[in-house]
Amino acid sequence: MQQTIRKTLDEVAARIDAGDIAGARQDLLALHPADQADVLTELNSDKRTALIASLEPEQLAGLLEHLTPKERADIAPRIALDSLAAALDESQPETAADILHDLEREEAAGVLGAMDEAAAVEPLLLHPDESAGGIMTPNVIALRPTMTAAEAINYMRSTQPPEGDAYYLYVVDAAFRLLGVLNLRQLVTAAPERTLHELMDADVITTTPETDQEEVLRTLQHYGLRAVPVVDEVGRVVGVTTADDLIEVAQQEATEDMFRMVGLDEEEPFLGPVLPSVRRRLPWLSLNIVTVFIAAATISVFQDTLERAAALAIFLPVVAGLGGNAGTQTLTLVVRAMALGEYDRSQWRRVLPREIAIALLNGAALGVLVAVLAGVWQDNLFLGLAIGVAMLGNLLIAGVAGVLVPTILRLGRADPALGSGIVVTAVTDIMGFFFFLGLAALLISKID
Amino acid sequence: MQQTIRKTLDEVAARIDAGDIAGARQDLLALHPADQADVLTELNSDKRTALIASLEPEQLAGLLEHLTPKERADIAPRIALDSLAAALDESQPETAADILHDLEREEAAGVLGAMDEAAAVEPLLLHPDESAGGIMTPNVIALRPTMTAAEAINYMRSTQPPEGDAYYLYVVDAAFRLLGVLNLRQLVTAAPERTLHELMDADVITTTPETDQEEVLRTLQHYGLRAVPVVDEVGRVVGVTTADDLIEVAQQEATEDMFRMVGLDEEEPFLGPVLPSVRRRLPWLSLNIVTVFIAAATISVFQDTLERAAALAIFLPVVAGLGGNAGTQTLTLVVRAMALGEYDRSQWRRVLPREIAIALLNGAALGVLVAVLAGVWQDNLFLGLAIGVAMLGNLLIAGVAGVLVPTILRLGRADPALGSGIVVTAVTDIMGFFFFLGLAALLISKID
Repeated sequence: MQQTIRKTLDEVAARIDAGDIAGARQDLLALHPADQADVLTELNSDKRTALIASLEPEQLAGLLEHLTPKERADIAPRIALDSLAAALDESQPETAADILHDLEREEAAGVLGAMDEAAAVEPLLLHPDESAGGIMTPNVIALRPTMTAAEAINYMRSTQPPEGDAYYLYVVDAAFRLLGVLNLRQLVTAAPERTLHELMDADVITTTPETDQEEVLRTLQHYGLRAVPVVDEVGRVVGVTTADDLIEVAQQEATEDMFRMVGLDEEEPFLGPVLPSVRRRLPWLSLNIVTVFIAAATISVFQDTLERAAALAIFLPVVAGLGGNAGTQTLTLVVRAMALGEYDRSQWRRVLPREIAIALLNGAALGVLVAVLAGVWQDNLFLGLAIGVAMLGNLLIAGVAGVLVPTILRLGRADPALGSGIVVTAVTDIMGFFFFLGLAALLISKID
Repeated sequence: MQQTIRKTLDEVAARIDAGDIAGARQDLLALHPADQADVLTELNSDKRTALIASLEPEQLAGLLEHLTPKERADIAPRIALDSLAAALDESQPETAADILHDLEREEAAGVLGAMDEAAAVEPLLLHPDESAGGIMTPNVIALRPTMTAAEAINYMRSTQPPEGDAYYLYVVDAAFRLLGVLNLRQLVTAAPERTLHELMDADVITTTPETDQEEVLRTLQHYGLRAVPVVDEVGRVVGVTTADDLIEVAQQEATEDMFRMVGLDEEEPFLGPVLPSVRRRLPWLSLNIVTVFIAAATISVFQDTLERAAALAIFLPVVAGLGGNAGTQTLTLVVRAMALGEYDRSQWRRVLPREIAIALLNGAALGVLVAVLAGVWQDNLFLGLAIGVAMLGNLLIAGVAGVLVPTILRLGRADPALGSGIVVTAVTDIMGFFFFLGLAALLISKID
């Protein structure tokens, strides 16, 4: 947070404490709406409510526009129904839809009933939050192909289409079906008498309202577009998704993957209340208890061996630690490639041999190094041999698990990142102990 | 990869094998340039070179536009100097700069010397790849404030500004210093006689050429913009960065964080040659050898204890595994919050107590559970006590390390993600063993 915003925050808080809501409001409104949003989210709940109640609908709307979806979901339920409805009338429809999506069903119905612009928002509510239909702007500029460039400019002057949907013009037939697209640059630079039909590009890349937002992002990126129009099943334009909306999608998807790999809920705020975080993390740590106890049981199978040579216990974290990290490296590579759309269904057949080759080479190098270090330290050649071979075997397992765990999760239509870090390290722990202690048991007469 | 692209790939490969380069070229050009790029990257090196040699400069340019930076760096050095220069003349300047950045210095100088449009590209080469100056489009439309809307439209009709820089118009003084901004929608919908000075928004949010691309991304997102103009030290507009370029930045930064946390080089392609990958992963796995041997040394301190009670070895992965995962959860949360700009310098003072509170609650719950499980399994209350208390202690350490490791890395001006996963699990391994075996040693008369 910048110094100036921090300063305003302190001033605003002090003024509210002193009962000077009007002064606090004035301080707040001197900032850019994006910075106002920062100040608002930092205030405590009572101060925030007092301040919000003092804002005009369009001021509140500007502020809501700049909150993250999570912050909106937190703040919206505490705004009086009429104020919220008035503010949403002034908001962009996709922002209004995002807020209504997260309210309780009855509350959302109440707010929608009190809105003047409900008709613009309702179609968006039909689609899930994370689909093209849920993130699109429903305001598109749709024009007829027989219009000339000059007529189109005049039409826009007289209708004054709202901010936020601006760069592309869609050319449609009488039934609103998409015929082509042209951008404002083309319109402005065209000879005035040329028709839109002549100017437009008829080869439009589109998406459907049901398409997952991640897929829309990949389409936009693959074709280097700034926006992708959303068309319904009969080819009518119902909205547009733009690059600036999709940045948020790209970040959200990356956060989701990172969090899910380690068993974190992607909704976990890093500064929220403690108890919900405890509840969110406990299930994965409990799964983890199961996996570590399987690892423990693997060791217990070799308890006799350990009783004859307690020094073996020293090397348990060596085999498990290196295997776990190597497996997590492969896993991260695969999960990320899947998220970026570089990894299609048959790719594992090419990735698996590659990861096995890398594991063999890294495993040989690390195996020799660890064997020498352990052998010299404990002055026992056979112990070195056991750990070196176990290391090679465990790196192989790590490479295979790093590829197969996310691949299998995806085949089962689950998120390939989901808890995958915990599963991969469990596999490398268990197999690492099994290889090392198994070999040590075979060589026990030379080791103890 | 879609079915149609895969089919074209097979056809193109077959035609090149049969010596029918012209036919292969025709098949390729029937696709969208973005799909052409997909086909090209899947061909082997010889086929690819033969096909590229058959393309016209503007065809090659369209194709280069749709390759990722990594693919460009791979393909560009194999194109004949003159062909490459001709293609870059037809490319967007930022694409040309990206390619020249990655060539050997002498080769880049040769290509630049053979280009007609070198002057458009040279300013971009002055800035590092990952700065605003390195990713910006240098083509901006800059107009004088006294112009009317009608004059501006006429001016654009007569100059026909190139594609790709289109949505915003910048209003500048005689010295090219930025006065304000307006978008094409505003221009088109304005009354023809109004001046740009009246129409423009003088409150422009800008960035400088030296600004890191991640910072530019955060500015664009924070203020909900579609583009951020880049101005030099005296306030002249030198280019513009747009939302569509910054999606790639958002993804690149997320990949970087994920990879660096587990000690992967962010340049590692998931289907590249094996040996470079081995070389890239080995250094981190070697650092990992150091950390696992420190963990091993910690256990060896308690060798006497282990000799008296070999069953203790069974529970080493329980303490280490749960601690490692809990630490990685906290670490992931912090690294991600830092990357998204939610985590400023003083934030650790708020995050640390929160993570400690979560660790205490999760640690108490898991500690009791593990104590009971271990105590019942081994029929030894004191062993259960030792592991339960060690678990609580290790979760505390995990929470603290998960916050402090990235915070300290950032204070030292290093990437907060760099190898942080390996360091955090090392800390939890070592401290977990120390707590558990230390307690067991104290209680040894009750355990063995």
